[in-house]
Amino acid sequence: MDQHIKNEVFDYAKAWILEAGERIRSKIDSPRSIETKSNANDLVTEMDQETEQFFAKKIKDTYPQHYLFGEEGFGDEIEDLGGTVWIIDPIDGTMNFVHQKRNFAISIGVYFEGIGEVGLIYNVMEDVLYAVKRGEGAYKNDQRLPDLSEKRPLKESILALNTSWLIPENPHVEHNGMEELVKTLRSTRSYGSAALEFAFVAEGVLDGYLTMTLMPWDYAAGSILVREVGGIVTRADQEELDLLNSTTVLASRANIHKEISENYVQLKK
Amino acid sequence: MDQHIKNEVFDYAKAWILEAGERIRSKIDSPRSIETKSNANDLVTEMDQETEQFFAKKIKDTYPQHYLFGEEGFGDEIEDLGGTVWIIDPIDGTMNFVHQKRNFAISIGVYFEGIGEVGLIYNVMEDVLYAVKRGEGAYKNDQRLPDLSEKRPLKESILALNTSWLIPENPHVEHNGMEELVKTLRSTRSYGSAALEFAFVAEGVLDGYLTMTLMPWDYAAGSILVREVGGIVTRADQEELDLLNSTTVLASRANIHKEISENYVQLKK
Repeated sequence: MDQHIKNEVFDYAKAWILEAGERIRSKIDSPRSIETKSNANDLVTEMDQETEQFFAKKIKDTYPQHYLFGEEGFGDEIEDLGGTVWIIDPIDGTMNFVHQKRNFAISIGVYFEGIGEVGLIYNVMEDVLYAVKRGEGAYKNDQRLPDLSEKRPLKESILALNTSWLIPENPHVEHNGMEELVKTLRSTRSYGSAALEFAFVAEGVLDGYLTMTLMPWDYAAGSILVREVGGIVTRADQEELDLLNSTTVLASRANIHKEISENYVQLKK
Repeated sequence: MDQHIKNEVFDYAKAWILEAGERIRSKIDSPRSIETKSNANDLVTEMDQETEQFFAKKIKDTYPQHYLFGEEGFGDEIEDLGGTVWIIDPIDGTMNFVHQKRNFAISIGVYFEGIGEVGLIYNVMEDVLYAVKRGEGAYKNDQRLPDLSEKRPLKESILALNTSWLIPENPHVEHNGMEELVKTLRSTRSYGSAALEFAFVAEGVLDGYLTMTLMPWDYAAGSILVREVGGIVTRADQEELDLLNSTTVLASRANIHKEISENYVQLKK
């Protein structure tokens, strides 16, 4: 991607994500918007759609030749990642939005010929923006995130891992391996927003994040962010992510990535 | 507890917890204090001890007849809950302190003749104080927390539940019941600080919190807070908490408490 375009896309994406976040905050904080909705589920559906439409209009007005690939379907039908594609989740962590009215994020990843060039994850209620231009550093607000250079062993690591993957009947992963993993780790956490869990890995407050069913908009920005600080992001079996379909994902510090995948993850096929 | 004393204890406890939190924040934010410690483990040990000593001195100077029951052992040997007992965890969520430098809390519960009268949980890095005087309402900063009146069914509930309790070898609870619980719930979360997980239940952003090994200082404040808004807090088998020993805990909205305990929790003896 041309450097001038990359800078411009980053600046627009940053301005738009902050504006979209401000709109969501003002709706959540307005007693009227809660009163006039029958419940928080309606509010999140409305916010999800409004926010994606907001981005769709901005992108089409500014870059008519770019594509938008989003959760809510106001973008384009995407069959490959040719050209420039904005992959957007207007509200990542909708269950948190509904139940907690916090701990959700807007996620934007911009890809050029299949390479993630610009990524932004905005923790809306905390007003914290994680942002990356590939090869130019990852930031949490104005603070540059250091490389994940520390080789923390698995037994001292904290992984984001939901209880779902320890259920024998889950259709994605053998639970026995997950049990062995939990017994080996120092501890697990679960925050309910994939985008934020990627951001926390990039920030080094989690050592990794393992999950079985993410859509491209859930990890399009997060994978760029984590890779920028030296982390590894692949499918849980170490294959490349394909960015067009639902997938397993393992994002972690480099030194524990292969160990987790090879010793503990046995995918069901 | 005499109302005048209760008010005074609350005011002192609030002033002290904010002061202790400010000390911790300034240490965490000081590059020098990180540099001069060999690692974050040393820092948390020092902060844990300094903070408990801070409370021990304040309490003994102000209320020489009160007792202090704390994690770090600078208080009194407690064999029963006669008189007035301050039950304090200077840093709840030490693993979060070490790995994340956030998502930890100071917890203070003040008991008179075994009844929890005053509770405070301070989310130090976010500067959010949850506070309760029994019978006089629970607050998050200046905002009164509403009663947990909504009867949300279990299948729409989010429970704080760590992956540990789904491991067959865990010595506390049969994993099969926990698996059935996870399959029934809408979702689970895990934040790594018991005090904050109680606060989130009181706030209504979690519907419940189930865990198998808490010490009295982990739940002394949280149980007062959750009960004040109409939640139920007992051992996982619905027996009374004893406040002197390690215990299982189930804190939740009233309408799902018995259902979780009776249908899903089978304790190992």
